[in-house]
Amino acid sequence: MGTDSKRILILGGDGYLGWPCALYLQARGHKVHIVDSLVRRHYDVELGLAPLWPVPPCQDRWSRINRQAWSTLDVATDVVAVRDLIGDFHPDVIIHFAEQRSAPYSMIDYKHALYTQQNNVLGTINVLYAMHDFCPEAHLIKLGTMGEYGTPNIDIEEGFIEVHHKGRSDVLPFPKQAGSWYHQTKVHDANNIMFACKIWGLTATELNQGVVYGAETDECPADSPLCTRYDYDAVMGTSLNRFCVQAACGIPLTVYGRGGQTRGYIDIRDCMRCIELAIDNPPGSSSSLDTPDPSSLCALSDLGGASSPSSTPHSELRTPHSPSPIPSFQVFNQITEVFTINHLARMVQSAGDAMELDPPVQVEHLKNPRVEAEKHHYQPSMDKFKVLGLQARKLTDAIPRLIELALQHKDRIRTETILPEVSWR
Amino acid sequence: MGTDSKRILILGGDGYLGWPCALYLQARGHKVHIVDSLVRRHYDVELGLAPLWPVPPCQDRWSRINRQAWSTLDVATDVVAVRDLIGDFHPDVIIHFAEQRSAPYSMIDYKHALYTQQNNVLGTINVLYAMHDFCPEAHLIKLGTMGEYGTPNIDIEEGFIEVHHKGRSDVLPFPKQAGSWYHQTKVHDANNIMFACKIWGLTATELNQGVVYGAETDECPADSPLCTRYDYDAVMGTSLNRFCVQAACGIPLTVYGRGGQTRGYIDIRDCMRCIELAIDNPPGSSSSLDTPDPSSLCALSDLGGASSPSSTPHSELRTPHSPSPIPSFQVFNQITEVFTINHLARMVQSAGDAMELDPPVQVEHLKNPRVEAEKHHYQPSMDKFKVLGLQARKLTDAIPRLIELALQHKDRIRTETILPEVSWR
Repeated sequence: MGTDSKRILILGGDGYLGWPCALYLQARGHKVHIVDSLVRRHYDVELGLAPLWPVPPCQDRWSRINRQAWSTLDVATDVVAVRDLIGDFHPDVIIHFAEQRSAPYSMIDYKHALYTQQNNVLGTINVLYAMHDFCPEAHLIKLGTMGEYGTPNIDIEEGFIEVHHKGRSDVLPFPKQAGSWYHQTKVHDANNIMFACKIWGLTATELNQGVVYGAETDECPADSPLCTRYDYDAVMGTSLNRFCVQAACGIPLTVYGRGGQTRGYIDIRDCMRCIELAIDNPPGSSSSLDTPDPSSLCALSDLGGASSPSSTPHSELRTPHSPSPIPSFQVFNQITEVFTINHLARMVQSAGDAMELDPPVQVEHLKNPRVEAEKHHYQPSMDKFKVLGLQARKLTDAIPRLIELALQHKDRIRTETILPEVSWR
Repeated sequence: MGTDSKRILILGGDGYLGWPCALYLQARGHKVHIVDSLVRRHYDVELGLAPLWPVPPCQDRWSRINRQAWSTLDVATDVVAVRDLIGDFHPDVIIHFAEQRSAPYSMIDYKHALYTQQNNVLGTINVLYAMHDFCPEAHLIKLGTMGEYGTPNIDIEEGFIEVHHKGRSDVLPFPKQAGSWYHQTKVHDANNIMFACKIWGLTATELNQGVVYGAETDECPADSPLCTRYDYDAVMGTSLNRFCVQAACGIPLTVYGRGGQTRGYIDIRDCMRCIELAIDNPPGSSSSLDTPDPSSLCALSDLGGASSPSSTPHSELRTPHSPSPIPSFQVFNQITEVFTINHLARMVQSAGDAMELDPPVQVEHLKNPRVEAEKHHYQPSMDKFKVLGLQARKLTDAIPRLIELALQHKDRIRTETILPEVSWR
C-alpha cells in the first residue's frame, strides 16, 4: 500500500456501483473490505428479473477481491456483527451503498415500503453509531440522491441554502421534497447524518447522485467475470437503459407522461472518479469548498477553480454558494448534465438512426405511473465536483455502446419486464 | 352519538396525552377506540422510573373506556393486526401519539436510537398505508414537535416557508434541524406524511407541539383512577416538572448550561382543545387557514381573525403566512407561549416564594448534557390556533398547582432520577 493508501469499507459492495467502486479503489492501492447481504440478487429472484447479462456468482467476486475482504452481512439487521466488523477493520473511509435503491420497488405495497425504510434508515443509524463508538475519525461517504430535492421552483444548491426571511437570514438545509418511499429514506438518512456530524463531530460527505448510466468501467468490462450489472426492467432499470433495450428490440421507447421530467445524469466512470475526489477532499480539508479560509482559496486556485472563474474552463460556476454550517459535513451534487426524458428519448432515437437500426426507433408516451411534475423548473448546482477537477463525460457518447450491448445480448431480453406495473397511486 | 360524533382511533392512548385525549373526546360524544402497546409502562420498568403518583393499571382504564374499545397492539410491529383493526373500525379520525417521545431515551445508546427510529418511522408508515388501503377519507392528526425546526436564525413558520432565491420563489417545507434521534424521527414522519398526502390525497394535520405542562384535565384529575402521568425524571420528565419537584424537595433547580435555550410551551388542557380544533378544521375545510378562497376569508372573519387583524384581539397575527402547497396537508404549531429555561426557573422560584417554601428555591447551572444552542433567536409563529379561537392559558398560572402536587406526593419523589445521565456526546 502506498502512503496515501486507505482502509476503505464498502457497504453494499455487491451492487451495480459498489462492485466497480471496490475494484476501482483496489486498483488505486487502497485496502478494500466489502460488506454485502447479497439482497440485490434476491430482488431479482423475488421479482423474476434478469439483467441484460448474468451477474457473476459472488464466489467469483470473492476470489477477485480476496475472500477475507468480503463479509456477507446485512447492515440494517446484523447490527452487532456490523459493529464488530467496523471495530475490527477500523476503516479510514466508509462508502455506504448498502440501501434499497429503487423507487418503484419501494412503492409496490406496504411491505416493500416498510422494508425500504427499515433497511435504509436503520442501516445508516447503525453505521453512524458504529463510527461513533469505534472509528470516530473515519470519513463516511454516503450515497444520497438528487431525488431528495424534488423539483422546487428555485435553483437547487448543494445541500444548503441561505434563506432570507422577515429581515433575518440563515444558512439552512435545502428543503427536500422526495418523490418515493425510497427517496424519502435518503432524506431521512441525510438528516440523521447531519445530526451525527453536528453532535459527535463525525466526518461525512453526502453525494447527491443523479441517474447513473453506463455498464462498464476500466476494471469491469462487460465481457468479463468482473462485470457489473445492466438493468433495464421497470423496477430496477433506468429510463435510459430501457430506451436502449427497446431500441435494440425494435419496440417503441416508452416515455412516462409528457416527458418533461428533468433529472441530472452522470456516467458510471465519472461516478467512480467523484467518489475518489470525495475521499481526497473530506469536509474541512484544504481543498474543500466549504472552508472559507485563505489556504482553501489557494487550493481552489491551483485547481483552476472558483477564485478566477472568468479565466478558467469553469467560467459557468455559479458562486458564491452557501457553505455547510456543520464543519465536518458536506454535500456534493454528483451529476454532470441535465436532460428531460423527452431529450433522452430523442438522443436514443438519433443514436439508433446513426446505427441504422431496423426498424427505426419510435417513441410513445404512457400514462405516467408516478406522481411527479411533467414540466418544471430544474437548475441544480453541479459546481463542487467541477471545481475539484472532474472532467465530465457526455451522456450522448455513452448511448451507442449501451445499444450495442443490448443488441449483443438481445436473446436474453425479457420485454415483458419493461412496462411499468407499480403505480404511485 | 350526536350528528357531529366521529369514529376516532387514538394510537398511543395509554400515554400522558393519549389517555386524557381519549376521555376528552369521549366526553364530547365521539366514539373512541384506543390502540396501545403499553410500552410507555415498560420504559418505566426498564429505567427504574416512577412518576409522581402511580399510573393506574390498564385494567382500570379498560373498564372506563369499554374493554372492547381498547386494542393492545404495537403500531410499528403488529403490522397486520393494526391494518385489520383500521379496516374494521374504519375511523373518521386517527390521532397518532404512538411514538417513543423522549429525546434522552433516544440518545442512551445505539439500541435506543435504533428502537426509536424503527418504532416511530415504521409505525407511521404502517398507519399511512393502512389509511390508503382501508380508510382513505380519514383525517390523520399526527403529533409532531416544535423540536423539528431546531433553532434557526430566522422566524419559524407553520410547516412551510416562501423562499426567494436567485430571482425565483417557491413555498417549500420549512427546513428542519432536529436535535435528537427522537426529534429526527418526527421530521422523518412529517416528510413521509407529506408525501402520502401528495401522492394519495390522504388528509393529514401535523401538530408541531411544544413542551406540554400540567398534570390534570377536567376528565383526569390527579386524585382519581382516571389520572394521567406526572413525570419528573431526567429521561421522561420535562424541565418544568423537574423544577417543580426540586422546589418541593428543597433542592436547587438544575438548569442545563447557560439556560438561554428557548422553547414553546402549552398547557395540557389547551393541547386537548387544539386536537379538538384540528378535528373540526381538517385541511381544505372552510375555516382552514390554508384555503385562500372567499368562503375561507368569511370563516376567518367570523372568528375575529386574519381578515381585519388591527381591530381584533388577534392584532399580533403575523400575516400573511405561506399556505401549504399540498391541499390535503396542513401544519399547526401547537404552542401558546415561549420561554427560556432561565425564565422557567425564575417563574418556579417566584411561585415558591409566594408559597413560602422553606428552604427558598435556588437555581444552579449544570454542564449541558445536550448539544444545543444556549442563546439563540426564537420567534415561532403560533397564529393558526389563535385564528381558530384557542383561548390560551398561561404557564405561570399552572406552576403553583404543579408544586402543590409535588408536595402532596413528596414521599414518592426519587431525587436520584432527576439529574441527567444521558449525554448527547
